[in-house]
Amino acid sequence: MEKIVSLAKQRGFVYPGSEIYGGLANSWDFGPLGVELKNNLRDCWWRRFAQSRDDMVGLDAAVLMNSKTWEASGHIQNFTDPLVECKKCHTRYRADQINDERCANCGAQEFTAPRQFNLLFKTAIGPVEAKGAEVFLRPEIAQSMFVNFKNVLDTARLRLPFGIASVGKAFRNEITPGNFIFRTLEFDLMEFEYFIEEKDWQKWFDYWLREQQGWLADLGFAKKNLRVREHEANERSHYSKRTADIEYNTPFGWKEMFGLAYRADYDLKSHMETSGQDMRYTDPETGEKFIPHVIEPTFGLTRLLLAVLLESYREDGERVYLSFLPKLAPYKAAVFPLLKNKPELVKKARAIYDDLRQSYLVAWDERGNIGKRYYSQDQIGTPFTFTIDFETLDNDTVTVRDRDTAKQERVAVREINKYLENKLSD
Amino acid sequence: MEKIVSLAKQRGFVYPGSEIYGGLANSWDFGPLGVELKNNLRDCWWRRFAQSRDDMVGLDAAVLMNSKTWEASGHIQNFTDPLVECKKCHTRYRADQINDERCANCGAQEFTAPRQFNLLFKTAIGPVEAKGAEVFLRPEIAQSMFVNFKNVLDTARLRLPFGIASVGKAFRNEITPGNFIFRTLEFDLMEFEYFIEEKDWQKWFDYWLREQQGWLADLGFAKKNLRVREHEANERSHYSKRTADIEYNTPFGWKEMFGLAYRADYDLKSHMETSGQDMRYTDPETGEKFIPHVIEPTFGLTRLLLAVLLESYREDGERVYLSFLPKLAPYKAAVFPLLKNKPELVKKARAIYDDLRQSYLVAWDERGNIGKRYYSQDQIGTPFTFTIDFETLDNDTVTVRDRDTAKQERVAVREINKYLENKLSD
Repeated sequence: MEKIVSLAKQRGFVYPGSEIYGGLANSWDFGPLGVELKNNLRDCWWRRFAQSRDDMVGLDAAVLMNSKTWEASGHIQNFTDPLVECKKCHTRYRADQINDERCANCGAQEFTAPRQFNLLFKTAIGPVEAKGAEVFLRPEIAQSMFVNFKNVLDTARLRLPFGIASVGKAFRNEITPGNFIFRTLEFDLMEFEYFIEEKDWQKWFDYWLREQQGWLADLGFAKKNLRVREHEANERSHYSKRTADIEYNTPFGWKEMFGLAYRADYDLKSHMETSGQDMRYTDPETGEKFIPHVIEPTFGLTRLLLAVLLESYREDGERVYLSFLPKLAPYKAAVFPLLKNKPELVKKARAIYDDLRQSYLVAWDERGNIGKRYYSQDQIGTPFTFTIDFETLDNDTVTVRDRDTAKQERVAVREINKYLENKLSD
Repeated sequence: MEKIVSLAKQRGFVYPGSEIYGGLANSWDFGPLGVELKNNLRDCWWRRFAQSRDDMVGLDAAVLMNSKTWEASGHIQNFTDPLVECKKCHTRYRADQINDERCANCGAQEFTAPRQFNLLFKTAIGPVEAKGAEVFLRPEIAQSMFVNFKNVLDTARLRLPFGIASVGKAFRNEITPGNFIFRTLEFDLMEFEYFIEEKDWQKWFDYWLREQQGWLADLGFAKKNLRVREHEANERSHYSKRTADIEYNTPFGWKEMFGLAYRADYDLKSHMETSGQDMRYTDPETGEKFIPHVIEPTFGLTRLLLAVLLESYREDGERVYLSFLPKLAPYKAAVFPLLKNKPELVKKARAIYDDLRQSYLVAWDERGNIGKRYYSQDQIGTPFTFTIDFETLDNDTVTVRDRDTAKQERVAVREINKYLENKLSD
């Protein structure tokens, strides 16, 4: 884990947030390579789950919602953690996370009884900080899809079963154990609400569990690092008959990466009651009106990015590399002129680089010896490196080196684009 | 404008935020088509300004930053609007926006003198709402790029001039006149900070102004609807020698869509002073250390989306269409079987649809008469419609209809993919 955190910072994947000011409560920023990796994961998800399916549409809702939303969802009443307070210095701890009898801040040994603290970040709209102006940063993106259910239904002419998909930020005012970007106050979620008829819930639950697992397999995750944990009845919300986590084998234990919940008709029903608006669906065949039930697959994007870094990290003797799938890698390729002081090599390499740049994010490196340059690209997971050498000037071929095998072969310059295209479509 | 707002809601571009609860302070959500249009604009910007340039890298930073950031930037002290309060009902108004002598809420005629109110949304981390835990929702994304300047410099091996680009949400607790999504409390920005040597500032200012205008031209904006407004000395920040807005001719007047500011070395210097961290750049040739100067081109994504809707809206007799560039359109094409009760037409159409879906977001419609279906696709800006008719079964060609001209021609089924590819690369 330390290796990943250090590599992530050194190479520009993830920086500590507000670092020059001593940071801020385990917040993190995504650097030049991190933002590309994150966007690639996001786009890959969006294409697969939102765009390429006839039964799914997208939504991108505001972070700030009318507070009635969080009354209806139960967050204002129930979204709490039990905290205890050190009687001496008043530092607060999560009651279930005090492993020691002593306050970590001052060493005192007396704590208050646990009290419930709400995890919603609260702010206020307008210059008056009155009750009416109180709003919350959304703790999940799900509610925006429920609140917009009717709008989507009216405009997108969908029939059950169908889903509404969304990608966005959520905020939770938690006391977090951290673990790098695994658990942060502010995080990116990818999620959809899949609306179904009640009778079909088991079928769709199983279907989406397989789909979530299938995606992880396609992203190259090893089976041994994944497991499904079904929630016990006492862990589940009262309205849920089944909830499962897809856990990843992190260096700090098996942890939830994705979630899957059968939410029944709880949310739409609550919003219908609280808002007085009709949230029912009308069956186009029978004319029957009813509130659809919901299966909710949740994909933590920030967590997935961490898991991809962990899963991709490889050591091979001295060599360290990130074995990203080509389609996820920040740079799809690197182009090196063998020697920087040979203008004919640099010129030829530059032409190849400029051509590839039209279609892909590609790295350029001309400094120092070729071994160090390979090492550097390995560390950031660049899958292919094209080196332009003296043979290139003779026969218009380049050396292409594969990141994972470190094997080299020659490919014709005119075939480079095709070569990359094929590798990226895998 | 009313036509756009109504079309946007009816067809799923933009819904009023939290609508079932009576909305929330001019907030808006992007529906199934809006999210695609917005993502297309975002991706188009990212490819052009962040990915396809050697002098630019990306960053994706947290919304919540250490509050010292906003001390250094001046936002805590100076990011204010002057407000007056009705002496009777205490409703507050922006001093510069009271057009009437009477309170719009209660009708009273007496107001307090203007007072400055800070526009930062304030919240608190942790269960104690103490001064130390106070944090703000970022009112701009620029500061994250300054705060991370050293991290980026250390990891990305860049030489001046270079830029750091970012896309993300910003929040401003304003009393806003609204105008649909033009001015909202929460909005998406695309922006970069371009670091230069002081002596070059005029050159780069002019360069980026041309680049911003060039992008708008490439997005299909008419010259007559754009103008550059240079800020007067008394409008500019004290540290800026030049600021310009690119304004768009909206139905509610000429309004700022993009901005361009020369920020000198103000921000990095402030962060260096406040944090005590060295924010200087070392010239690799001379070894000289200095604080770079900054040109900041800002592109409001939410505003751009509105401008694209306004700019694309066309009426042609009865016909209403959105003349989006194909690469920006939510659906790249629609596929229609001429008649839904002819299985051989539906089957053939479905095969074409399924094939196109592998590469593009494509609409399917088999309901009602063909004219109504064209009308519906025109309204959402789908650039091409392929209709599978009886002639298709004879000679394997389909009718392709162009949204803008409403002209139809025949194209071979095996050429459809190529046809779309060509149109999209324009």
